[in-house]
Amino acid sequence: MSEENLHPHISKQFDQQLEDLRNRVLVMGGMVEEQVGNAIQALLENDVTLAEQVIANDYNVNSMEVEIDEECTQVIARRQPAARDLRLVLAVIKTIADLERIGDEARRIARQALDLSAHYPKKNQLSELEQLARHVKTMLHDALDVFARMDVEHALRVVEQDEQVDKEYESILRQQITYMMEDARSIPVALDIMWSARALERIGDRSCNICEYVIYYVKGKDVRHISLEQLEKKVRE
Amino acid sequence: MSEENLHPHISKQFDQQLEDLRNRVLVMGGMVEEQVGNAIQALLENDVTLAEQVIANDYNVNSMEVEIDEECTQVIARRQPAARDLRLVLAVIKTIADLERIGDEARRIARQALDLSAHYPKKNQLSELEQLARHVKTMLHDALDVFARMDVEHALRVVEQDEQVDKEYESILRQQITYMMEDARSIPVALDIMWSARALERIGDRSCNICEYVIYYVKGKDVRHISLEQLEKKVRE
Repeated sequence: MSEENLHPHISKQFDQQLEDLRNRVLVMGGMVEEQVGNAIQALLENDVTLAEQVIANDYNVNSMEVEIDEECTQVIARRQPAARDLRLVLAVIKTIADLERIGDEARRIARQALDLSAHYPKKNQLSELEQLARHVKTMLHDALDVFARMDVEHALRVVEQDEQVDKEYESILRQQITYMMEDARSIPVALDIMWSARALERIGDRSCNICEYVIYYVKGKDVRHISLEQLEKKVRE
Repeated sequence: MSEENLHPHISKQFDQQLEDLRNRVLVMGGMVEEQVGNAIQALLENDVTLAEQVIANDYNVNSMEVEIDEECTQVIARRQPAARDLRLVLAVIKTIADLERIGDEARRIARQALDLSAHYPKKNQLSELEQLARHVKTMLHDALDVFARMDVEHALRVVEQDEQVDKEYESILRQQITYMMEDARSIPVALDIMWSARALERIGDRSCNICEYVIYYVKGKDVRHISLEQLEKKVRE
């Protein structure tokens, strides 16, 4: 077979392999999204069984990260990708690391749910947390959508959400500190809520990270650690 | 020049490039170690100026990560490393990501130091935190030493420390909750101490991660998410 004939074949096989990698990230993303959703539900609805399930399932998320990571190493070693293809593989390596850590945060929320179940918080004490949870779940969902479509404009809109999530998080902290100061008996519940809010806030951060990796892949620019204004400029220039 | 003559030259140049990468990680590691040390000092000694310096310097840590990361991508694209060399570059990419996040934790501790400076905690309220801080600083220092020498036996000993650090962390949380319940006025200080302890505990976790990357590089085995017992077995088999 001549080299010209061989090349498209190898290239097609390689494209398939990269496509497969992307799909596996989305499967892992779906798994992590479910873990986060279940952890939040367990927390808000005082569901001990569901919380225990989230904690047990974290193992699967971890295994999936190790598998995809290994596949990425194989792709680099065997295919020696350059430019855009290499950026994709490196973006995948970073994305799955953040997904795995979002899984860890889901496990932490599930642990808080178990802890909270002993204290029975009043429903209205959870209402602000519910709002933050809804917001962060949307951010994670959108970040996975950004990854699926490699959509940098959508990536920008997700990153823009982070400021609002941070505000909601700070507001929960302030509110819970007020409760604690007013009534010492509310301290254990307030702390569980604060730790859960913290985990949610971190999930928001990590969803932004995923969007930044997509921008890196599509635009070839590392956009971490820059202001939102600079980010918008870099994406649109 | 014949290919045989060319090859050792390229290889030597490549070795130099990998050596340079390792050295830059150690420079970044030293920078992060200093940030952590200063943040802890600012917290324990109520040093507002030092805390502000840590917050300002975080920018340098972030820039260094982006630079080394870019260099790694260049090395993979141009040198197409395989096997052990590729593992080194991938271990570097992961190590600098953890170092950058250790830098973030140092910045968080510095912020708590600023917050605490308004409340003036009693010295004895910080004594347990001081012990945890000393322990975590040693873990980070040792993890960087493990990276410098690529010493898997030492890596194991660092990872073994993590259980003790977790215990010290839990003990601080329990102690501070007791203070909070006893006297509502201690709540702001207790919370600052809890958040700082949390940041220290995370620095311990991330120091372990770095050790695991070294084991991955030397042994070619991904040893994340496994028990300490399994880890020892994998390192020694």
